[in-house]
Amino acid sequence: MSQHGTEPSYVFTEKQVAEKSGLARHFLDTRTRLNENVTKADNFLVKRFYNLDHNAYLEGALPAKYKEMMGLVASACLRCDDCLNYHVIQSYRLGVTRAEQEEAINVALIVGGSIVIPHLRRAYELLTELYA
Amino acid sequence: MSQHGTEPSYVFTEKQVAEKSGLARHFLDTRTRLNENVTKADNFLVKRFYNLDHNAYLEGALPAKYKEMMGLVASACLRCDDCLNYHVIQSYRLGVTRAEQEEAINVALIVGGSIVIPHLRRAYELLTELYA
Amino acid sequence: MSQHGTEPSYVFTEKQVAEKSGLARHFLDTRTRLNENVTKADNFLVKRFYNLDHNAYLEGALPAKYKEMMGLVASACLRCDDCLNYHVIQSYRLGVTRAEQEEAINVALIVGGSIVIPHLRRAYELLTELYA
Amino acid sequence: MSQHGTEPSYVFTEKQVAEKSGLARHFLDTRTRLNENVTKADNFLVKRFYNLDHNAYLEGALPAKYKEMMGLVASACLRCDDCLNYHVIQSYRLGVTRAEQEEAINVALIVGGSIVIPHLRRAYELLTELYA
Amino acid sequence: MSQHGTEPSYVFTEKQVAEKSGLARHFLDTRTRLNENVTKADNFLVKRFYNLDHNAYLEGALPAKYKEMMGLVASACLRCDDCLNYHVIQSYRLGVTRAEQEEAINVALIVGGSIVIPHLRRAYELLTELYA
Amino acid sequence: MSQHGTEPSYVFTEKQVAEKSGLARHFLDTRTRLNENVTKADNFLVKRFYNLDHNAYLEGALPAKYKEMMGLVASACLRCDDCLNYHVIQSYRLGVTRAEQEEAINVALIVGGSIVIPHLRRAYELLTELYA
Repeated sequence: MSQHGTEPSYVFTEKQVAEKSGLARHFLDTRTRLNENVTKADNFLVKRFYNLDHNAYLEGALPAKYKEMMGLVASACLRCDDCLNYHVIQSYRLGVTRAEQEEAINVALIVGGSIVIPHLRRAYELLTELYA
Repeated sequence: MSQHGTEPSYVFTEKQVAEKSGLARHFLDTRTRLNENVTKADNFLVKRFYNLDHNAYLEGALPAKYKEMMGLVASACLRCDDCLNYHVIQSYRLGVTRAEQEEAINVALIVGGSIVIPHLRRAYELLTELYA
Repeated sequence: MSQHGTEPSYVFTEKQVAEKSGLARHFLDTRTRLNENVTKADNFLVKRFYNLDHNAYLEGALPAKYKEMMGLVASACLRCDDCLNYHVIQSYRLGVTRAEQEEAINVALIVGGSIVIPHLRRAYELLTELYA
Repeated sequence: MSQHGTEPSYVFTEKQVAEKSGLARHFLDTRTRLNENVTKADNFLVKRFYNLDHNAYLEGALPAKYKEMMGLVASACLRCDDCLNYHVIQSYRLGVTRAEQEEAINVALIVGGSIVIPHLRRAYELLTELYA
Repeated sequence: MSQHGTEPSYVFTEKQVAEKSGLARHFLDTRTRLNENVTKADNFLVKRFYNLDHNAYLEGALPAKYKEMMGLVASACLRCDDCLNYHVIQSYRLGVTRAEQEEAINVALIVGGSIVIPHLRRAYELLTELYA
Repeated sequence: MSQHGTEPSYVFTEKQVAEKSGLARHFLDTRTRLNENVTKADNFLVKRFYNLDHNAYLEGALPAKYKEMMGLVASACLRCDDCLNYHVIQSYRLGVTRAEQEEAINVALIVGGSIVIPHLRRAYELLTELYA
């Protein structure tokens, strides 16, 4: 499948993020290790879905950084720590400030309610390491 | 509670939206009618929550229009037509283009899956009327 | 399956509720009509589930009225209007006051967030008719 | 995107289903009407997602009829009437019996709880028309 | 924001709970540590939300202990272990009996289905330590 | 409660599964340990629910293996790792092939979206051990 949109310009590499934050490193390492099983399985539909998932966050009508924060809000509302970590890291890599990340999390907190708080707490721990 | 952030500048009034789209008018009229019962009840905590909800979408570190689209993505992922209608309308009132709205909905579709499609279909009907 | 707990004492019959509120009547009539298909189907597991569902709200260690309000909070958080209507009506039938119902809804609003608001609005419409 | 798997053999056409059941006809007509807006919009990512969605239910390692019933269970658990209607109809078109559909719904009822019941009631109404 | 309602009278302090149960101690310690990052961030909207959250469980028209159990049911239905732990502990601190907690969990089990069971199992482990 | 349907014929015992996969062993051991508290509590409604849950997956109009995979899809869509592990193991014990399990997971991925991916990754790790 061809791409729709262009690759965003990252301010930081994944490696730089992993060096800065132990929480990010642990998350990224686990994700890489688990994705190896998925890659080996070489499932047609999973590969297509991963491709589509990649396409959804490219630079397009909306800047990539806002789409990453939309992914962040969706992840927080649906309460998935892995997804939330991922989008916090991607937003950071695209130059999003901490104040911007907190406002995005606030939208998720208001829409999703106090059930979001345990995830907010863990996200703030990651934010604290990334923006130290 | 004081405000944190400033009121956004709307390109269109609610009245203009209601004149342009029958779907929007029906949604806004029903919402107004039902909110009257809530207003009459004058419940302390509900009023505080409404106030906080208002605060979450003001101009701040993030432009209001992106926060409305974050609300849109959250609403679509959590599959609430009323909330989705509301944020589509608010985004339109803040000058968001149709292409931008579609990309925001795409993030929700990828994160939330095919269960989002019936809501996407109804959102596209509203988009079609608003951007006619 | 035998019962565990005792039947609660209702202050109002379903018929009295239906006479007082048009919204309640419409809900109860639709529910009765649809349940006829379920009854006719006579599915073993569905019948057992309905029986268990009935048992969960009997007078026991907790008074039935608080269990109905717990069902109300769960229904509002999981955002099911039919379930919410049902537990608002059951709570009303057990003598719960409007102030008590509003506080229960507030717990759901805080836990579940603004996505609960459209359901809260419709619940307030029903409360307004029931407690007129 | 190429297909992965083969098209299933339907016992009934959509037209036959629509002639047999008023509920199915209303659902299918609304779906067709709303999909027209989506088709006109011609959004790259939405088209790709629809294509992938189609692929997921083809004959493959698993017979299509069981995948439709898996979609049915997912729809009931996630409580989407439109999706549930769709998979009940597709299962019917593939020759699934009423007893099989009821057992699939039972899995959803047990996994998803009483919050599924309002959707089960409406599904039984559709089943009653389809299998009359 | 002023309070609406009065602080409940706890039978046990958090410290007593932490001394009685290792699971409770681990949960409370982690929560305290993570909340420190949130407190330091001093985010306007988060502070307001925490305040509102506190207000929702005060003694009011409904006794605080029933509101804690409503929070427990909501947490179990929405399947958040942290929230569930919190409300089990708060209910215990307010003198709720084990039999009452089990009945509240039963409402969540019936409404939310078997997907609640893994959380029920972990809640029972905490109950076993608290009521030893 | 009597049974409705017959016990399925397992190809592998739980013990054999635990010997083959460390992940399965850890899951099964934890589940057994936690269930002991639930068994000791001897709660009327919980026992009835467990019984009903058992009934839902027996051989009936639908073969047990397809019902286990329906439970798998529901668990993945509702994003419960414990439930997903359980149904992957049960499906394996009933002779389901890896290709069949992957197709079932694909239905969940399409219906539930990218929020399912972290659970898919962990499920693939378990599949890799089971089908080694």
